[in-house]
Amino acid sequence: MGGYRGRILRVNLTDKCIKTEGLKLELAKKFLGGRGLAGKMFTEEVPTEVDAFSPENKVFIAAGTLTGTKAPTSGRFMVVTKSPLNGTLAASNSGGFWGPQLKFAGYDMVVLEGKADAPVYLSIEDDKVEIKDAAHIWGKDVYETTSILKAEFGDDQAKVLTIGPAGENLSFMASVMNDLYRAAGRNGVGAVLGSKNIKAIIVRGTGRVEHAEPNALNEVLTDVLNKIQENGVTSQGLPTYGTAILVNIMNENGVYPVNNFQESYNENADELSGETMTEKYLVKKESCYRCPIACGRYCDWEEGEGGGPEYESVWVFGSNCGVQDYQAIHQANDLCNRFGLDTISVGVTIATGMELFQRGYIKTEELEGTPLEFGHAQGMVEWIRKIAYREGLGAKMALGSYRLAKGYGAAELSMSVKKQELPACDPRGVQGQGLSYATSNRGGCHVRGYSIPPEILGTAEKPDRFSIKGKAKTVKASQDLSAVIDSVGLCLFSSFALGLSDYKKLINAITGFDYTDEELLACGERVWNNERLHNLRIGYTKADDTLPKRFLKEPIPSGPSKGHVHRIEELLPEYYTVRGWTPDGVPSSEHLNALGM
Amino acid sequence: MGGYRGRILRVNLTDKCIKTEGLKLELAKKFLGGRGLAGKMFTEEVPTEVDAFSPENKVFIAAGTLTGTKAPTSGRFMVVTKSPLNGTLAASNSGGFWGPQLKFAGYDMVVLEGKADAPVYLSIEDDKVEIKDAAHIWGKDVYETTSILKAEFGDDQAKVLTIGPAGENLSFMASVMNDLYRAAGRNGVGAVLGSKNIKAIIVRGTGRVEHAEPNALNEVLTDVLNKIQENGVTSQGLPTYGTAILVNIMNENGVYPVNNFQESYNENADELSGETMTEKYLVKKESCYRCPIACGRYCDWEEGEGGGPEYESVWVFGSNCGVQDYQAIHQANDLCNRFGLDTISVGVTIATGMELFQRGYIKTEELEGTPLEFGHAQGMVEWIRKIAYREGLGAKMALGSYRLAKGYGAAELSMSVKKQELPACDPRGVQGQGLSYATSNRGGCHVRGYSIPPEILGTAEKPDRFSIKGKAKTVKASQDLSAVIDSVGLCLFSSFALGLSDYKKLINAITGFDYTDEELLACGERVWNNERLHNLRIGYTKADDTLPKRFLKEPIPSGPSKGHVHRIEELLPEYYTVRGWTPDGVPSSEHLNALGM
Repeated sequence: MGGYRGRILRVNLTDKCIKTEGLKLELAKKFLGGRGLAGKMFTEEVPTEVDAFSPENKVFIAAGTLTGTKAPTSGRFMVVTKSPLNGTLAASNSGGFWGPQLKFAGYDMVVLEGKADAPVYLSIEDDKVEIKDAAHIWGKDVYETTSILKAEFGDDQAKVLTIGPAGENLSFMASVMNDLYRAAGRNGVGAVLGSKNIKAIIVRGTGRVEHAEPNALNEVLTDVLNKIQENGVTSQGLPTYGTAILVNIMNENGVYPVNNFQESYNENADELSGETMTEKYLVKKESCYRCPIACGRYCDWEEGEGGGPEYESVWVFGSNCGVQDYQAIHQANDLCNRFGLDTISVGVTIATGMELFQRGYIKTEELEGTPLEFGHAQGMVEWIRKIAYREGLGAKMALGSYRLAKGYGAAELSMSVKKQELPACDPRGVQGQGLSYATSNRGGCHVRGYSIPPEILGTAEKPDRFSIKGKAKTVKASQDLSAVIDSVGLCLFSSFALGLSDYKKLINAITGFDYTDEELLACGERVWNNERLHNLRIGYTKADDTLPKRFLKEPIPSGPSKGHVHRIEELLPEYYTVRGWTPDGVPSSEHLNALGM
Repeated sequence: MGGYRGRILRVNLTDKCIKTEGLKLELAKKFLGGRGLAGKMFTEEVPTEVDAFSPENKVFIAAGTLTGTKAPTSGRFMVVTKSPLNGTLAASNSGGFWGPQLKFAGYDMVVLEGKADAPVYLSIEDDKVEIKDAAHIWGKDVYETTSILKAEFGDDQAKVLTIGPAGENLSFMASVMNDLYRAAGRNGVGAVLGSKNIKAIIVRGTGRVEHAEPNALNEVLTDVLNKIQENGVTSQGLPTYGTAILVNIMNENGVYPVNNFQESYNENADELSGETMTEKYLVKKESCYRCPIACGRYCDWEEGEGGGPEYESVWVFGSNCGVQDYQAIHQANDLCNRFGLDTISVGVTIATGMELFQRGYIKTEELEGTPLEFGHAQGMVEWIRKIAYREGLGAKMALGSYRLAKGYGAAELSMSVKKQELPACDPRGVQGQGLSYATSNRGGCHVRGYSIPPEILGTAEKPDRFSIKGKAKTVKASQDLSAVIDSVGLCLFSSFALGLSDYKKLINAITGFDYTDEELLACGERVWNNERLHNLRIGYTKADDTLPKRFLKEPIPSGPSKGHVHRIEELLPEYYTVRGWTPDGVPSSEHLNALGM
C-alpha cells in the first residue's frame, strides 16, 4: 500500500499515555484520509453534546492520503475537532511542510485527547514521541515559539505547529499555525489546543511515503504537471501575483465587499491589489510542499517583513474595514500570524464592530480610546492585539462577530453563516457562492465548494453568475470534489487545472487502489453527509442554511453587481433534492444506505 | 541619494580594527557598485604581485547599487579578491538574502584585510559589529555553521555567509556560501577567507534602502515586471523547470558535454533533465530577494533533501562524468554545498581525473580504492569528500583540473581557460560562447557575456550559432552589459526579459542619477577594462585568450553539432578591435582615456 503510512499516533494529555494504532483501512477506503477520515473518527469517538473545550473533545490532526507524496500540492493536512465558534465539525486546512513531515515520521494522524494539567508540547522524531514541558513557550508568539523549539530540537528540518497567545486565551477565532506563516485558520481550532494546554507539536521524520505504482505514477505526473503548466491561473495568475490577483477581478465584478459588506465595489481597489503588492512589497514567493504554483507571498513593509498577506487578508483588513493603507494591512496580517488568529474572522469581526459603532450600538466610552471607525487603520491594528489578549471590548470581539453583534441586539449585522464570518465575495453577485456559504457544514467559508472559478473566472464554461439555474447541482458537485481534495491532502488550487479523473489517477497510482470516478466522488459525498449529520445532531436545522438578512433583502447599492440580492430560498429546495435529502435538509436513510453509510 | 547606503565597513583581522568609511561616490558613478566598484578598489588597494593567500590580499564583499531595493532580482552581491586558482581579479556572484541584509544593516560593502591569528567570524547588527571567536564552528560544514550561528544570534532574520571545510583547507575550488544553498562559487574565493582565518559573517539589518524617485520607480517597476512576465524564459521556463530546463535544449543542439567534453550529445539526457527533476524530486521552488522568477530548486531524494541542483551541477555530475544517476547528482551537489565547493570546477576536475585515468596517466594504485571511471557514480561522490579534506589524490584535485592534468604532463586534458574550468556548453557549437570563454577576465565562465540567450534560445534575433560573423561585437556588448548587471546587484537572468534601457531606468529612479544608455554601458566597459588591466599586469597575455586544444583541433564527433571546431583565432583580432585594444589585446591609452580611466 502506498500513500498512507498506516499508523495513527494517539496521545492522551491527561494521563500522558502515548500509543500508536493501525489505520483502519476499510474506513480510509470510504472516507479517504485528512478531513474525511478524521471527521468520521470524530463522529465515532466524540460524544455529540460535548463542549469544545471539554477534555472529552478530541483534536485529530490528520495528513491526507497523498500528503507527503510526489503528487503536486501534496503539502496539506487538517485540524479536525469540535468548533468552539459554532459547534460544527471543524476541519481547518493548512499547507506548508508540517503535514508531509508527519508522514515522513510514520504517521497519518495525531489524535490529541484529554487535557494536560500544565502547558506541554509534543515532540515527534520518527518513533521517538515525547510530551514535554512548555512552561518556557507558553505566552510566546508563533514566531518566537517556532524559533525556540527548532533551536532546542537541533535539526533545521524539524517542522513546528503551534498556537499563539490567542489560542491560549481561548479566542473563538484562534488558528493553529505551522511553518511560521501557514494557518489552519478557521473555526477557532487553535483555542481547542489551548483548552487542552498543548502549545505545539514539533515533528521530524526520516522515512518516506511509498508509491504503489511508480511507473504509472510518472505518466500521471507528467500529465497533471502539464495541465497545471498550461492553465493560466496556476501557471501565471497565482504564481505571479499571489491569491491577491483576485482583488481587481472580484472588484471589477462588483462583488468585493466594502465596509462590512455595506457596499461591493471599491473604486481604489487597485491600490491594494496583488499587482501593487508585487511591485511594492513582494520579497519572495513561497511554496508549500511539492507545489508548482507557489502562490504564497513573503513581503516587507516599512516596519517589518513576513509571510503573506493572502487575498482574504488583503480584503478583510483593507476594503472590508474601509482601510486604504497597505502598511496597515501588512501589520494586521503579521499580528494575526504572530498571535495565531484567523484573519477572516478577526477582520470581519472588527468590521462588524465598526458598523455597530457607526450605527450607534457601540458607544465611544466602550472603546477606551481605541478608534473603531471604518477607515481607521491604526485603530484596526490595535483591536487585533486587544482581541488576542481579550482586553476591554476585545474580549467580546474574541468570541466572533455573531456573539458581538447579538450582544448589542443586532445579530443581523454579523456577516456570518452558522456564526462563522464570511470571506471576500459578496454572494449577491455570485449565486452559486452564496449557496455554498449557506450550506457549508462548518459555517461561512469559501473553500467548501468554491464557485469563483466557474462563475467569475470561467475556468471551464462560465455560467451566468446572477442566475440560479443549475447552481444547486454544480455547487453540490463542487462540495463533494472539495471534500475529496481536502481528504487526500492536496490543495484546492490544483482544481483550477485538474478534474476528478486526474485526482483519481493520482490516488490510484499512489495507493494502488482502483477507484472509479464515481466511487471517488462518493467518498467526497460521504464526507459531506457525515459532517451534515453531526450538524443536525447538535441542533442545526434548515433554518441555519441561510445568509445574513443583508444579502437577502438589501440589493447591492452600486457597482457592477448593483441591484442584486441573493436568492437562497429559491435555491435551497433544489439543492436538498440534488443532495438526496428531505425537504427539511435531512439526509434520507435510503440515500445514506446507497452511499454505504 | 538612493540605492547606495554610502558606507563601507572595513575590518582588519590582524589588529582587530573595525571602522566605517564613506563610499566614494565619484568612483561609484564610474564603476557602479558590486563587481565594478569592488574591483576598482581592489586594483587601487592590493599590490599587483601579492599572493592570494597573503595577509596583504583583501576580500571585498560588495552589494550592488540596487541590492536590497525594490528592483526585481536585487538580491545579489559579489566576493571580490585575488583568485588562488588563477590570480585573476576574482568576482564571484551570489544571490539569496545576505546581500540585501548587508544593505539593511547600513553598508554597501565589507572589506576584509589582514589575517586573524585564530579562527573568527564577523557579527554585524546594524552599527554593532564584532569580531568573534569561531573555534566552535571551525571544521563544521555550511549547514551546521549556519544553524549554530543563527541560533546563537537569536534572530531568525539574520543571514549567514560562510565557508565550509574546503575553504578552511584552502582548496582552490572553495566557494563562499550564503543562505545555506547560495554560492559565490568560482575562482576559489572561499579559500581566501580560509587563509585569513575568517569562517563566516552573520548580518542583520533593520534599516531600509532609500529610493530617490519613488513615483517614477513605480512606473518603471510596472513596466519591467510586465516584461519579465511576458517573457517565456522568465515567466515559464525558469520558474517551472529551473535552470535545468537547459539540459534538453542544450543537448538537442548538440552542445551538452559528455565525459569531459569528449562528446557533446547524450541520448539519455532527458533522464537527467529539469523536467524529470520537477516530476520526481522537486519539493519547492526557491527565490532570491525580490525575484519574480524563482529558478531556485529544493529537492528531496532517497537519502536526503536540500537546495539545488542547478543546470551546471546536473550536467557536471551527470553527463560530464558519464553518470546517469539522479541520486548521485543530488548527493554530489549536496556535498559541494556542505563542504563549500564550486560544483563546476569540482565536477570538471573529477571528469579530468577520469579522462587521465582512462588514458592511463593516473594509475589504479593512486586511487587507493576509490574508482575514478566515467560513469562510476559512487566513486564520483567519494572524490568530492576527498577533495574537501585533501585526502590522497584528492589533494591534487583540490587545486583544480589544470594543475592536476599538468602534473601528469597532460595540461591539454584540462577543460579550462586561464586555469578555471569551463561550464556546460561546448564552445564548438556556439561560436560566441567560445569567444566569451576565451576572453573572460576571470577565466572559464559562462556569466561574463552569456551567448546562450541569443545563439541557442533566440531571445531577441537568433544569429547562426556556427557562424563567427558579428560575434565579436555582440560578445563585447554582452560582456559590458553583464558587468553593469553584476555591478548594480541584479541577476543576469533578468536580462532574458530586460535590456540596457530598462536597467538605466531602474538605476536612475532608485539612485536619482541620470545615466544615459551610453554612459551606463561605459560603466560596464570600465569594469571590464579594469579587470583586463589587472590580468595583463600579472602576466596574462594574448596567448591566454584561447580555449583548450580539443575545441580548436578536434571536431565534435557526433550529434547535432557534429564536425564543428571553435574558430577563436579568427574571432580574436576582430574582438580586440571592437574592444579598442591593440592587436596584442592591450587596452590602448586613447581608449582608456576616452573611457575616463
